[in-house]
Amino acid sequence: MKARYTIGLDFGTNSVRTLIVDVANGREVATAVWTYEHGEQGVILGRDPNLARQHPADYAKGAEVTIRQALRDAARNVKGFKADQVIGIGVDTTGSTPIPVDKNGRPLAFQKAFSNNPAAMAWLWKDHTGVAEAAEITALAREKRPHYLAKCGGTYSSEWFFSKILHCARTAPKVFEAAYTWVECADWVPAMLTGTEAPDRLTVGVCAAGHKAMYNDDWGGYPDAEFLSELDPRLGKLRERLAAKAFTINKAVGGLTDEWAKRTGLVPGIPVAVGAFDAHLGAVGSGIRPGTLVKIIGTSTCDMMVVPLEDKLADIPGLCGIVPGSILPGYYGLEAGQSAVGDIFNWFVNYLQPGGKKAGSHETLTAEAARLKPGESGLLALDWNNGNRTILVDQRLTGLLLGQTLYTTPGEIYRALIEATAFGALTIINRFEEYGVKVEQIVNCGGIAEKNPLVMQIYADVTGRPMKVSRSAQTCALGAAIAGAVVGGAYPSCEAAQAKMTGLKPRVYKPNPGAHQVYAELYPLYRKLHDAFGTPAWQGNLYDVMKKLLDIRARVRK
Amino acid sequence: MKARYTIGLDFGTNSVRTLIVDVANGREVATAVWTYEHGEQGVILGRDPNLARQHPADYAKGAEVTIRQALRDAARNVKGFKADQVIGIGVDTTGSTPIPVDKNGRPLAFQKAFSNNPAAMAWLWKDHTGVAEAAEITALAREKRPHYLAKCGGTYSSEWFFSKILHCARTAPKVFEAAYTWVECADWVPAMLTGTEAPDRLTVGVCAAGHKAMYNDDWGGYPDAEFLSELDPRLGKLRERLAAKAFTINKAVGGLTDEWAKRTGLVPGIPVAVGAFDAHLGAVGSGIRPGTLVKIIGTSTCDMMVVPLEDKLADIPGLCGIVPGSILPGYYGLEAGQSAVGDIFNWFVNYLQPGGKKAGSHETLTAEAARLKPGESGLLALDWNNGNRTILVDQRLTGLLLGQTLYTTPGEIYRALIEATAFGALTIINRFEEYGVKVEQIVNCGGIAEKNPLVMQIYADVTGRPMKVSRSAQTCALGAAIAGAVVGGAYPSCEAAQAKMTGLKPRVYKPNPGAHQVYAELYPLYRKLHDAFGTPAWQGNLYDVMKKLLDIRARVRK
Repeated sequence: MKARYTIGLDFGTNSVRTLIVDVANGREVATAVWTYEHGEQGVILGRDPNLARQHPADYAKGAEVTIRQALRDAARNVKGFKADQVIGIGVDTTGSTPIPVDKNGRPLAFQKAFSNNPAAMAWLWKDHTGVAEAAEITALAREKRPHYLAKCGGTYSSEWFFSKILHCARTAPKVFEAAYTWVECADWVPAMLTGTEAPDRLTVGVCAAGHKAMYNDDWGGYPDAEFLSELDPRLGKLRERLAAKAFTINKAVGGLTDEWAKRTGLVPGIPVAVGAFDAHLGAVGSGIRPGTLVKIIGTSTCDMMVVPLEDKLADIPGLCGIVPGSILPGYYGLEAGQSAVGDIFNWFVNYLQPGGKKAGSHETLTAEAARLKPGESGLLALDWNNGNRTILVDQRLTGLLLGQTLYTTPGEIYRALIEATAFGALTIINRFEEYGVKVEQIVNCGGIAEKNPLVMQIYADVTGRPMKVSRSAQTCALGAAIAGAVVGGAYPSCEAAQAKMTGLKPRVYKPNPGAHQVYAELYPLYRKLHDAFGTPAWQGNLYDVMKKLLDIRARVRK
Repeated sequence: MKARYTIGLDFGTNSVRTLIVDVANGREVATAVWTYEHGEQGVILGRDPNLARQHPADYAKGAEVTIRQALRDAARNVKGFKADQVIGIGVDTTGSTPIPVDKNGRPLAFQKAFSNNPAAMAWLWKDHTGVAEAAEITALAREKRPHYLAKCGGTYSSEWFFSKILHCARTAPKVFEAAYTWVECADWVPAMLTGTEAPDRLTVGVCAAGHKAMYNDDWGGYPDAEFLSELDPRLGKLRERLAAKAFTINKAVGGLTDEWAKRTGLVPGIPVAVGAFDAHLGAVGSGIRPGTLVKIIGTSTCDMMVVPLEDKLADIPGLCGIVPGSILPGYYGLEAGQSAVGDIFNWFVNYLQPGGKKAGSHETLTAEAARLKPGESGLLALDWNNGNRTILVDQRLTGLLLGQTLYTTPGEIYRALIEATAFGALTIINRFEEYGVKVEQIVNCGGIAEKNPLVMQIYADVTGRPMKVSRSAQTCALGAAIAGAVVGGAYPSCEAAQAKMTGLKPRVYKPNPGAHQVYAELYPLYRKLHDAFGTPAWQGNLYDVMKKLLDIRARVRK
């Protein structure tokens, strides 16, 4: 029998990637990456540091360019490879990244009148302009629909679906009025490929709906119209235009259109799976199963676990989300995460440019940091430059660096920033276990896990647990390809596909007992800062410092 | 009558300066500066970041080179100028900078066996190796001689005389044994110039003795032998080799030796005044008088005030020192200060090199910082990279930066560091006034006051008070020249000399009310951090974080 392949289409923050995978063994036969052309590497910024948007045209062009390129490369890499051996497509994207669309499901940004209007673009996951609206939604839900919050850590985030839409309604009413409805990027891309964008034909995934839009089958799907109307009557009206039901990744939304077959060189009609977020499909591509924590470490971090639906599972305070079927069908998907990890290192390198553009690269700073022993710099940092997603669920928190002398070097600070993210990671592991979700092994994936052994070693030393790394360097796309393999009929279930298509790298980062001992002393100091600045319950004297600074900043910037 | 001149000899951290001044009006007719040749710009560093030493050979060579150069320049600048018109010399130095010397008062570092031994050098003011010894001295004095501490802020500092000597006894016993006694740099230089180095002929100044060595006429001079012996019997033995009495700057220690006259081109026998610290003579050169706070802003800051001896003056907790006659004869000299100001900016520029060596200069960063409004960055910092001298008197405190996002720029951090030093300055002003010492005007001097209008404006905006700048750009040397003018017989008193020889620049930095309003909101946030990390009394939860980090650092560095 001829080999069969599937495509994983992975839409990231800065680029889109097509991965072609052999369904028999997970072998990756071709990859193509295309960096978005709008904004700064795909991210459209504004004067407000909270604003981050993307142009949906980048998604369409990126899909076409990378699929064509990957097919060419596969034909070069694999003797006799033909595009008709591709039997399915899976899609993962960032999220929550909602897009305002017209009656036909076309993004408003495709209309000339809106093509340069940031409010009409995709509202990228890390856009935090809806901070006030998030607080409003949280307050109303806390009062009237506490069960909505119980599954998303007790706080509705500014990064999420309704915060962004409500902020648009308030601040860009023309865009809001012109939009018929709003579609998550993860749902829009499969719909585009299969010609099912029209709102009455649209299939949405439970991953985005459940984690970001308070969707739950138990209460009939999305939040009820009464609740949404109380936030804003216009939001109530939107309710009836949202899908009635959301699905898991083992379902196909449709078949590839003739047009997209032509644009890409694929066979028309091949099934496209329900879309999901990059982190969730990354977990699938890393072989997630009960007891395995998958850490996807990139610009931010997602910490994913699954628990069988039949198990008893408590609500876990501070966890971004607990959603049935959001990772694997048949399991609760648990999502935690750190709002910035690689982004903190990138900030240090790109914004501060320590030691000069040339000297202060990630490579030289990592080398300097690697020469230091734990505790040697006397520095301690909080990993909150982009807020804290888990366990504080507070996007308005900011960074902190403590312990500087007159001799502190860039390499020392770089290491302190790495350690801060490791302490943040440990805080999440502890929270899982405090609520009965045992972490038996940790599998890392993503660019930093791949490329920076120092980060992995520090994570092992800080947590006192071995750090394993996923075999694939592109687990999100691989997870999408696994969804493609299931909807393409190669496997009866995601678990069956995972068993064949995923694996681990041979190198395991084992904790160094001496280093762990020092970090065991440093972590309580991190927790003191964490609790003093992050929680109102703890003495309360410093809790408001970071927020008051932001309030003052917002006022003087006006 | 022919014009008369005096010389101010100013020994700084990195260089020595000779200033020749017309005693009639303070006109500065020549200046010469020579950078020390040992170590990094005169500072000998070690692996221990607390270590900072100087080679006394630099003091001798620096005096010779700069006096000769200044006399040449004066002859060029002033028609008919002759060296015999110089009628007196004053000396200021850093301190506490004690030097171990032999039986003849010669520095041990001049002996071949010790010429490269850091313990045999001058222990520069910012050397903090004696942290443990300082704590020991403080503890013993608190128990047995509380009056010793009442005049120096309640804590004996690691920067001071006996901490350094005791640390030498403990860690470099051979050097300690070889030393007959220890002499402050401020006393050693005048002694060298007048041939009075021998311990039985040595004249010491009350400035160094009173502020750094617990000298007070009320209890018979230096701390008693019993007290010192309890710290270490060897220290008790040293007691009898210290001077019996200390003097104010209006006294001459002797006349210039023939040898030094030959080396410099000056007339032999001209009087050399009792030496004092740079900050104290800087205050004199800035026209200090009751109600005037003189801020000498350089790598660190000294905040000086005087109160008539006949006034009632309470002990002021957290003030480095209250010493009769240490600034002006007839007045209490009050010394407060910040352990690092310019040094924090220098750290940021030289160690972090943000934006690259070229882009990240003080000039470009100041320009970036100047474009920002108060509060606009959302950043807040503590000015403790070198500890806190006033009001916490704790050298082991470290820096803190809070409020970083993923978009924080070097210019924003640079401004936050300036603001942090301004908040520190305000804390000192408040402490003076809380204890009844009214601050009626503020006169700034030193390199930063001269060169950085942004710093001065931020200080005005943060404190809500006008910032005046001393007319002279070299007030320490001018103050020394004023002492030279008094011992040279040109004036009957320091005040009389000040009236003619000092003045202010026309430009006054007035507080901007809008900016002050924002800073009035930011300062309480600074105080929250200050109190939380700096004082054990305040909740206590974070007080130890900085120290524990240093304890861990010290242990892992072993």
